[in-house]
Amino acid sequence: MAAAFSCPVFLPSTFSYNENRYHGRIKIKINATSSTKVKTLNEIAGAGKGSSSLATSTEIGHLSQEQIRQRIPTKKQLVDPYRQGLIIERGVGYRQTVVVRSYEVGPYKTATLESLLNLFQETALNHVWMSGLLSNGFGATHGMVRNNLIWVVSRMQVQVDHYPIWGEVLEIDTWVGASGKNGMRRDWLIRSQATGITYARATSTWVMMNEKTRRLSKMPEEVRDEISPWFIDKRAINEDVPEKIVKLDDNARYVNSDLKPKRSDLDMNHHVNNVKYVRWMLETIPDKFLESHQLSGIVLEYRRECGSSDRVQSLCQPDEDETLTNGVEQSLLKNMILTPGIMEGNGYLGPLDVKSYGYTHLLQIKGDSKNEEIVRGRTRWRKKLSTLPYSS
Amino acid sequence: MAAAFSCPVFLPSTFSYNENRYHGRIKIKINATSSTKVKTLNEIAGAGKGSSSLATSTEIGHLSQEQIRQRIPTKKQLVDPYRQGLIIERGVGYRQTVVVRSYEVGPYKTATLESLLNLFQETALNHVWMSGLLSNGFGATHGMVRNNLIWVVSRMQVQVDHYPIWGEVLEIDTWVGASGKNGMRRDWLIRSQATGITYARATSTWVMMNEKTRRLSKMPEEVRDEISPWFIDKRAINEDVPEKIVKLDDNARYVNSDLKPKRSDLDMNHHVNNVKYVRWMLETIPDKFLESHQLSGIVLEYRRECGSSDRVQSLCQPDEDETLTNGVEQSLLKNMILTPGIMEGNGYLGPLDVKSYGYTHLLQIKGDSKNEEIVRGRTRWRKKLSTLPYSS
Repeated sequence: MAAAFSCPVFLPSTFSYNENRYHGRIKIKINATSSTKVKTLNEIAGAGKGSSSLATSTEIGHLSQEQIRQRIPTKKQLVDPYRQGLIIERGVGYRQTVVVRSYEVGPYKTATLESLLNLFQETALNHVWMSGLLSNGFGATHGMVRNNLIWVVSRMQVQVDHYPIWGEVLEIDTWVGASGKNGMRRDWLIRSQATGITYARATSTWVMMNEKTRRLSKMPEEVRDEISPWFIDKRAINEDVPEKIVKLDDNARYVNSDLKPKRSDLDMNHHVNNVKYVRWMLETIPDKFLESHQLSGIVLEYRRECGSSDRVQSLCQPDEDETLTNGVEQSLLKNMILTPGIMEGNGYLGPLDVKSYGYTHLLQIKGDSKNEEIVRGRTRWRKKLSTLPYSS
Repeated sequence: MAAAFSCPVFLPSTFSYNENRYHGRIKIKINATSSTKVKTLNEIAGAGKGSSSLATSTEIGHLSQEQIRQRIPTKKQLVDPYRQGLIIERGVGYRQTVVVRSYEVGPYKTATLESLLNLFQETALNHVWMSGLLSNGFGATHGMVRNNLIWVVSRMQVQVDHYPIWGEVLEIDTWVGASGKNGMRRDWLIRSQATGITYARATSTWVMMNEKTRRLSKMPEEVRDEISPWFIDKRAINEDVPEKIVKLDDNARYVNSDLKPKRSDLDMNHHVNNVKYVRWMLETIPDKFLESHQLSGIVLEYRRECGSSDRVQSLCQPDEDETLTNGVEQSLLKNMILTPGIMEGNGYLGPLDVKSYGYTHLLQIKGDSKNEEIVRGRTRWRKKLSTLPYSS
């Protein structure tokens, strides 16, 4: 049944804008304003199987409908006009052009960290989508599905030099590399499309978990054969020694307890999405600090999944000493000196100010006898130059 | 200063995919990997003003940077390759092609209502963006800004026949029309790009408010002159008599109190975004019902803005009697009979089942002496055919 979709309809290299464009549409006469002759998706599914355009078969399972509607490529694609994506870097990297949408920005018209994390997830999945390796899961390859394996993220680091603003056109590059024997690294770069200036960079490491046993797994040979041809030895962030994040305890300065995952926080894997974790972390920092500071960097170390019934506690602790001591902060400092424009406040780039502020974070599940760590984090902040709204 | 941007660089009618594409980029030599010669955005802004490409002026205010980065058109544009948008309907309607992103879907891989509402907001703003009328606010025209006016939504109605799934390509049409003497109607249609089938339809009414006095305003002549040439007399939803939504009181079956807007809930207008209101409404419905039902329609009547310091209470009440009595439900029922595929459960379209379930909603600010209504709502639901995840 999947054979019908082995060659999904993608328009090659140009995207024609035409009011009556129906390229790639399954050729069934649809009159959307006529109320009695609308075809159901079931009928369309029948037609998509090669039967006549008047097919009314209702025997089609939902998988074929899903395939018609999603059109996941089963072979490598070089361009995707709908996603505005293309394969770069000698055939193994991915670049996508995106516009910062109105609902992806906060009160100052700048993209939120959450939006950037969402775009990282989206471009990563679209990279796998284009590769022809995507099975019907959350980024898992065909070989992974055969072995009941899913991806889990173990570490994520993001540096934001400039926050994109509403309506700005961005280019996001992403690529993968080896990480130890059984892991994978995925990096991202966000650039302004208009100027080429780098706005943000990120790196992450991923390992495989058995979906049934929930235990970490070695990378099977068949999976290595799928993904290793895509590895590039290039890094978005140069970090010699990954920073160690101390574990907070009940003495932490700020504590937010009894956080409950909601239905809307669950993603396709039926887990609380990582982006939600970051929201819980940042919401624990006092409003007064958040109003006058802007996040410049974050490191996350994931320890454990969080399910929909868990009750979560968020702890955070500001650095007592504002001197810059450890690895991440030094690399951040270096970056700040090299990029004089880093001190962005609401779109205005002012004079160099190297002072930065750090917080240590912990999300944990509060248990009767002991607590279980979900994620440890470090955030770095710079002072905003103005707390006025971006416009008006 | 705005003159420099009166002719934003948009690529006409074709979108060339080229790895080294720099069309539309401000021609400044940028070497993103070289660490010492990166130009700051201030320097770019200087260059954008017509000075030499080596300009290092730092006197540029943030407005010019914002203009370079946003490139809001000051004249009508017919196509926007970055937004995949084009002007249709004899020059006054707008169509945008979008792909359902991985973070816009819930656990069943179907787009959430929140995502649809976000896409409505986005396409509406992009419509104004293309018109050349957009000033530097949240959809306000130049004439509105001159009169200190902003848009406020007074009513919103959405019908969802099919939920789009992750990766699906959609076409969203939106247009405006007159609503009484001082209001504007905005409608939307969401279609599958592959089949042309309509998935969702929506209509909304908008009035103008004085930004300073917070009082509703008549539509000034200069604003009418701007927007009335864009009016189309066409409706996405035919509704003869708008349903009256009863006001709930403390006897409502389900009550969720002490809801607090968070920083991340504020939009560009520094208000709690409408989408957040819907989340608060839906979260008050018991999980057990939400797990087995899918939202098919919603009507919202906005009464009052909600600020960041308000404490909000969400009430809801299921219909006692499942017979379909009022206007909206009858039009919904009619729609269901005409579109046999409406009973979608997780992508599977099963046999016709006209039974639907209704809830009445109220969000209010709990005051010491009296409560203040924020929004009244009605939701309609259909039973899911399966509560299993979409895939696996």
